Amino acid sequence: MIHVYFAAGAQMWPRYQAPLAQALAAAGVEAVVSEVAPADPTAVDYLIVANGGMVSDFAPFTGARAVLNLWAGVEKLVGNATLTQPLCRMVDPAMTESMVEYVTGHVLRHHLGIDRHILNDRAEWLPEGPGPARSRSVTVLGLGELGSACATMLAALNFRVTGWSRTPKSLPGIRCLSGEAGLSQALAEAEILVLLMPYTAETENLLNAGRIALMPAGAVVINPGRGQLIDDGALLAALDSGHLANATLDVFRVEPLPAEHPFWAHPKVTVTPHIAAETYPETAAVVVAENIRRAEAGEPLMYLVDRGRGY
Amino acid sequence: MIHVYFAAGAQMWPRYQAPLAQALAAAGVEAVVSEVAPADPTAVDYLIVANGGMVSDFAPFTGARAVLNLWAGVEKLVGNATLTQPLCRMVDPAMTESMVEYVTGHVLRHHLGIDRHILNDRAEWLPEGPGPARSRSVTVLGLGELGSACATMLAALNFRVTGWSRTPKSLPGIRCLSGEAGLSQALAEAEILVLLMPYTAETENLLNAGRIALMPAGAVVINPGRGQLIDDGALLAALDSGHLANATLDVFRVEPLPAEHPFWAHPKVTVTPHIAAETYPETAAVVVAENIRRAEAGEPLMYLVDRGRGY
Repeated sequence: MIHVYFAAGAQMWPRYQAPLAQALAAAGVEAVVSEVAPADPTAVDYLIVANGGMVSDFAPFTGARAVLNLWAGVEKLVGNATLTQPLCRMVDPAMTESMVEYVTGHVLRHHLGIDRHILNDRAEWLPEGPGPARSRSVTVLGLGELGSACATMLAALNFRVTGWSRTPKSLPGIRCLSGEAGLSQALAEAEILVLLMPYTAETENLLNAGRIALMPAGAVVINPGRGQLIDDGALLAALDSGHLANATLDVFRVEPLPAEHPFWAHPKVTVTPHIAAETYPETAAVVVAENIRRAEAGEPLMYLVDRGRGY
Repeated sequence: MIHVYFAAGAQMWPRYQAPLAQALAAAGVEAVVSEVAPADPTAVDYLIVANGGMVSDFAPFTGARAVLNLWAGVEKLVGNATLTQPLCRMVDPAMTESMVEYVTGHVLRHHLGIDRHILNDRAEWLPEGPGPARSRSVTVLGLGELGSACATMLAALNFRVTGWSRTPKSLPGIRCLSGEAGLSQALAEAEILVLLMPYTAETENLLNAGRIALMPAGAVVINPGRGQLIDDGALLAALDSGHLANATLDVFRVEPLPAEHPFWAHPKVTVTPHIAAETYPETAAVVVAENIRRAEAGEPLMYLVDRGRGY
């Protein structure tokens, strides 16, 4: 019998208990899952976490064959020196779909100029359309699971999509750039910029004053990636100067975003409360169960985190 | 030499003059296009109109081999008894793309609940996502060129799409209904309803109080079709009672929408100024030129209007 410790936090347990039991049974894995801290950590075979959770010291879990994260981001785990077990990120098709819906919705919102119409009660009839998506350049920074899926959907809507990644990639219908020179070029094209990179030492404050200055005047930033990707002060300065027209932000350095933070009341900032990529217990549990089945069968784990790279 | 009379109105002429000349040359048609009313109407081979325009009596154009409309809608032409020449609607890939962008953008806006976040400056962090598009039912009434394209894109985003048309149709990934019983079923499913039917005697006030009552509580109406499809009073009553949550309207019985119309200031109505489907002269001119080439070659015209049906 396999012992799984659900260390993602007591508040998540009620949503995950039944889906996990069902997914493990469907995967043919006989396991006991418990949310109670184990008396004997050495008896735990697998830990389920949520980019943090109930465990900060993973050293006592000497028998654990993997630590399985329910979130796509692992920045709070990857620097934990006690976590020497194999660590897996969550890549969930339903989470990816949720992100595609958020990004496509907000890109179209800015492309179409929807805010103006929502806020307009002044009876202004100005029949000037936004022009076609074919003439609108959108840049997606980060071409992992989420970035690639978003870039592909935007290309299906005929946007001119540039994608940028650390290492060279190739995606049909998308102009793919990489490296520092590629980043400057990708930013210079970005009428609408979407940030979908992981948070690592390398990506912290990636969108700083210098790089914002490379973007076209009137550009828009959409950040459903990680708050730390943006230099907040530089962003606010660019919004105030008029260089940037809007920032739509789903993630922040501190969450919940504190009530006194200037983002809340800023007329050019849209705050969404970290809802872009929803995790659905039913589909996430299937990914967790499949990874446990693989580990037990001696097969390679899916979505294994590269500690050197940080994601 | 073929004589084409550009009767769509003087204000459209500057945008169309060069594209038409270029498209006709590319189609191998030797033609003179003029925006000036001809001294001898019998010498005109083709008329270009814009769902109305400079000509109300088409009888004198005895030599005209077709009347070519720059708009998708023909309701102002189809009832004109003097217009006995073949009449063609505009079906322009660029116009279709523009409609798909508008419909997809506003469906995602309502699905994601974007308005709440745009208008929220009260520092409320309520991390409840909208749920997946897979659980959201969208109904498209009208499965012509525009309706089919929109339904297909919404299905690609994983929405549960029901399409309804007068006559039975079949589209991959879309539940297609038809007839009066099918209409009731399509409305009962419509958390988000998109109206993309032509305006005819049969479709006038199609969305009346009785049919709105069939829709689920909290539903949203998006109308980029024709203003006459909706009973405005019934719509306002359903918004005021709370049965409907929002109406996003691009078309109206009178356009521009008069400043005193209650739609402008209504908190649950979003007015857009007839911009959903933009006509682009470059692409529309190609369709016009191709139809002239076909007529001259004795080939069937594209997008010929069925007078009995009304579109």
